[in-house]
Amino acid sequence: MSTDDLRLRPIGVARTPYRTPAEAPRQGFLVDDEASVEVFEPYAPALAGVEHRERLTVVYWADGADREFLANERGEGAFSKRTPNRPNPLNVCPCELVALEGRTLRVRGLDAVDGSTVVDVKPTLRTGR
Amino acid sequence: MSTDDLRLRPIGVARTPYRTPAEAPRQGFLVDDEASVEVFEPYAPALAGVEHRERLTVVYWADGADREFLANERGEGAFSKRTPNRPNPLNVCPCELVALEGRTLRVRGLDAVDGSTVVDVKPTLRTGR
Repeated sequence: MSTDDLRLRPIGVARTPYRTPAEAPRQGFLVDDEASVEVFEPYAPALAGVEHRERLTVVYWADGADREFLANERGEGAFSKRTPNRPNPLNVCPCELVALEGRTLRVRGLDAVDGSTVVDVKPTLRTGR
Repeated sequence: MSTDDLRLRPIGVARTPYRTPAEAPRQGFLVDDEASVEVFEPYAPALAGVEHRERLTVVYWADGADREFLANERGEGAFSKRTPNRPNPLNVCPCELVALEGRTLRVRGLDAVDGSTVVDVKPTLRTGR
């Protein structure tokens, strides 16, 4: 497969209270802050029906992550942790949907730094598995 | 941000019993088949500590997905469903770890078509949220 096929398209942007990685919670479910995902206009039709979901998983790109990080000196590998420092800094964040207003998803539990590039939104699985 | 930054690096390949999308289960947790993720050699160090995890979320690229799909005629948008047909065909699949053998993660519950490109592996959150 050509690696051109693995190029992500930004579908929206995260608006959160966290200006830096240090300010963002380690996991979104630890906080109850409200945040939002503004979906870009060309992708607005893909939001149809989202308003019926209670939980949405937001996949976003962690800007500034260290893509060369593989393991630390304590023998903890990137794949054994949810750190954004990994070969593909894709953060997968289950959120609670508050409301859909136009192209804006108002959510709780989003741990992204403000301005992060969102690449996908999908319903969270009901199973814990 | 340059879109060059949004280029995914293949970190492994899925080996599953499903040769076509029609053969794959709609969601991995519906089946108990064993499958595996072969992590490519340069990324092997990132597996350190994975063996202590019981549940891993595998993020893979759904080859052959329709990236132009936004909504169907029933008014169901791509973001309201977990269909692989979406602007960025990233499937997020929570799996049960059976064993780590060398660079191979043996898992249950992986719904990928055989040969799918894996782009990330991370521990599954314990919360359902």
